[in-house]
Amino acid sequence: MAKVLTSKEENYSQWYNDLVIKADLAENSAVRGCMVIKPYGYAIWEKMQSVLDGMFKATGHQNAYFPLFIPKSFFSKEAAHVEGFAKECAVVTHYRLKNDEKNGGIIVDPDAKLEEELIVRPTSETIIWHTYKNWIQSYRDLPLLINQWANVVRWEMRTRLFLRTTEFLWQEGHTAHATEQEAIDETDLMIHTYAEFAEEYMAMPVIMGSKSETERFAGAIDTLCIEALMQDGKALQAGTSHFLGQNFAKAFDVQFANKEGKLEHVWATSWGVSTRLMGALVMAHSDDNGLVLPPKLAPIQVVIIPIYRGEDQLPMISKTANRIKKELEAKGISVKYDDRDTHKPGWKFAEYELKGVPVRIAIGPRDLENNSVELARRDTLSKSVIKQEGLDVFVENLLSEIQENIYKKAFDFRAQNTHTVDTWDEFKDIIENKGGFVSAHWDGTSETEQLIKKLTKATVRLIPLDNKKEEGKCVFSGNKSEQRVIFAKAY
Amino acid sequence: MAKVLTSKEENYSQWYNDLVIKADLAENSAVRGCMVIKPYGYAIWEKMQSVLDGMFKATGHQNAYFPLFIPKSFFSKEAAHVEGFAKECAVVTHYRLKNDEKNGGIIVDPDAKLEEELIVRPTSETIIWHTYKNWIQSYRDLPLLINQWANVVRWEMRTRLFLRTTEFLWQEGHTAHATEQEAIDETDLMIHTYAEFAEEYMAMPVIMGSKSETERFAGAIDTLCIEALMQDGKALQAGTSHFLGQNFAKAFDVQFANKEGKLEHVWATSWGVSTRLMGALVMAHSDDNGLVLPPKLAPIQVVIIPIYRGEDQLPMISKTANRIKKELEAKGISVKYDDRDTHKPGWKFAEYELKGVPVRIAIGPRDLENNSVELARRDTLSKSVIKQEGLDVFVENLLSEIQENIYKKAFDFRAQNTHTVDTWDEFKDIIENKGGFVSAHWDGTSETEQLIKKLTKATVRLIPLDNKKEEGKCVFSGNKSEQRVIFAKAY
Repeated sequence: MAKVLTSKEENYSQWYNDLVIKADLAENSAVRGCMVIKPYGYAIWEKMQSVLDGMFKATGHQNAYFPLFIPKSFFSKEAAHVEGFAKECAVVTHYRLKNDEKNGGIIVDPDAKLEEELIVRPTSETIIWHTYKNWIQSYRDLPLLINQWANVVRWEMRTRLFLRTTEFLWQEGHTAHATEQEAIDETDLMIHTYAEFAEEYMAMPVIMGSKSETERFAGAIDTLCIEALMQDGKALQAGTSHFLGQNFAKAFDVQFANKEGKLEHVWATSWGVSTRLMGALVMAHSDDNGLVLPPKLAPIQVVIIPIYRGEDQLPMISKTANRIKKELEAKGISVKYDDRDTHKPGWKFAEYELKGVPVRIAIGPRDLENNSVELARRDTLSKSVIKQEGLDVFVENLLSEIQENIYKKAFDFRAQNTHTVDTWDEFKDIIENKGGFVSAHWDGTSETEQLIKKLTKATVRLIPLDNKKEEGKCVFSGNKSEQRVIFAKAY
Repeated sequence: MAKVLTSKEENYSQWYNDLVIKADLAENSAVRGCMVIKPYGYAIWEKMQSVLDGMFKATGHQNAYFPLFIPKSFFSKEAAHVEGFAKECAVVTHYRLKNDEKNGGIIVDPDAKLEEELIVRPTSETIIWHTYKNWIQSYRDLPLLINQWANVVRWEMRTRLFLRTTEFLWQEGHTAHATEQEAIDETDLMIHTYAEFAEEYMAMPVIMGSKSETERFAGAIDTLCIEALMQDGKALQAGTSHFLGQNFAKAFDVQFANKEGKLEHVWATSWGVSTRLMGALVMAHSDDNGLVLPPKLAPIQVVIIPIYRGEDQLPMISKTANRIKKELEAKGISVKYDDRDTHKPGWKFAEYELKGVPVRIAIGPRDLENNSVELARRDTLSKSVIKQEGLDVFVENLLSEIQENIYKKAFDFRAQNTHTVDTWDEFKDIIENKGGFVSAHWDGTSETEQLIKKLTKATVRLIPLDNKKEEGKCVFSGNKSEQRVIFAKAY
């Protein structure tokens, strides 16, 4: 079969686009910047959702649902939020269409203009804190630990499937606490939850840390994030958790009576991950043959393909294949038996490689004779002949091994592409020619950060949590620095 | 505790509104017609989603996600759809806000006007069939069995929590088939799936049938529905499944090459249920004390409440309570042990009655002595003392019994409130004074249907599936009729 993907080497960006489309993950829609998430892509997203939702609930959170629309005036209430947050929003101005009597078709009814425009939520802090005002009176109402699964819209000028789209799907947690420390702990808990998800399920190593002031969420006191390294040496921010202080509580006048009956403003956090994780998953592991999915998130973990000549061989093979399928399913493994006669085995092999199915089992007449199967791993592309007896246990262990191996590969890649740098020349050279994470001293000023960005396109990705304090000189300004931070070019 | 609800007798509509708000299901938001679904309400919706999603997948459907926005011109493509479908839509005309230099705050940037307005989806047939054009080339691509969980917006003038809101959550299935019969069978399968869900899980008996022409979905050849009877004698349409013929395939030019290589237009269905089901669930079973939830959809199936005087009694009670909790959870039963010291037992009793928790277990010092508990059923409000030994099996069986009993009660209510009527006077009398379903002959014309509606507010709810053919005379016009249909006033 001809290669269906541009190679990574040739054009990483094109490789990514090809892969997302060819592997049936998503495609561009008729609406600028909005994507259609196709069934195979959506099945992966559902697995992500299911795991994350379980983690949120295990840490005491409940789901709820808030309106899609936010009155325009709400955005003006928190000064930093309105100043810093992207104003590229979808604005609803009318509520009715009518027939166009002159030209046919339909037009917007000019008589149905809204008194106040509504914004399609780009994030929900404002509408949620407006709501919390009525939910919170006393310390007994706290903490309030709420999450929402929703679609949001940010009018992006340059979009890329999953990585940056006008509409995307996400979850946004919004919690309210009686004390500052409790809110800080929550912010910390959730970034650790995201890190655990990224590493354990996506097999994607991440660094946790704080954003610099310029990269902080508009309205936050502190923004924690997880950053992963993609195969092209660029960083990707995969999740954020914000400590919002009392900013939104003050903006929306949310106070509670403490145990002594005194009124205090509530402390807040918000945190989110989105369908951007799909892009991270693709870019962290995949190769020129297609997706490489970690078994824990693969919609199909094992595919079985019959190899036969002539219709009469198929029934015997199917009997064995279906038995094996049942045995694997009894272990909680998801299996597809693809006995379609419309496609040849070679085509199917390439197809499931493209789709990143972790394990492929092929069964032909000779396998029936030998009570064996041919088994191929997607991560290493290696093949071996395995006895049918005990195959279920073998595959179960193999899936764990693949999960670990994918993680290890990404971990080693990151180790090889993380550079400790002490001079500006070296900094520029690595950022320009090698990419990856650069650990360097920074004087902590936004001014330096902006200049570095202007000159190299690299930004401070994060100041790692529990960062080692180490006296040094800023790699750019030469000014005093108390710690190294992580720089990289980023998605 | 004082009654927190208006009684049903006094004002059914007010009782409903009180209940939805007081039981923490939902509330009105700052945005006209849009609701906030609160955690307890959302937990019930999540249970509904989970069951329905499993049913859809078991019948071969896959989930996907299509854009929130639909270009205005798409609505004009299917003539009946644009003509018949509500034009009360949210219209996005601009994509940017900017600071208001003069007055402060933010304004819509007049320079950021969209060339073509976007409609926030009221339903997704148009954008989905536009997409299907690229997905369907050959009979091998069919059937295409896709479902989407999404939010939709219809600008309603008069809204009521869950029953009719501007934004609501739903699922919409959109399937494509090679033959007419296959699409008809799919339409039928899905209405049966909805009926099974309503009866088995919501404990709500429904009638399946066809809508009359005037009540049909705009663009459909046939609309099947399920209708349930609420406690005030009004009907509620709880789900619909549409046979769309080739209408959308023709409008969006979706053709496939059949086995002979000839091009044909694809056959379509669409089907949906929404958060309206939450309203149905509330109205089908609840009473003046609050919600009555069927155990299969109750977020908390059993609540355990300790009865104690003085702090020293609590540890012993808690020990027993936690043991019982574990035993019940081992049976897959969801249990809450409410040992909060901020509220008295009487308050908790009322609270969980209000929230419809099916089984309440109270444990006091005397129960510890006697190895017993006090157990109360929410459906009958009856109490009994039960031995702790074997309590898990007892409760497991009791939950099934409650599920059945709630269904039976609703079934009997419907039986008592379904009237077979042959004269116009009787028809008017029952509709005006008693309510309920009225089975009557109808001449099949839209004209008669409209006149009946005008005079009595009753509409043809449905023509039941597999309806008995029976010659008769239309209850209104006296013209020939070949079958009885079901009339009622409706939500």
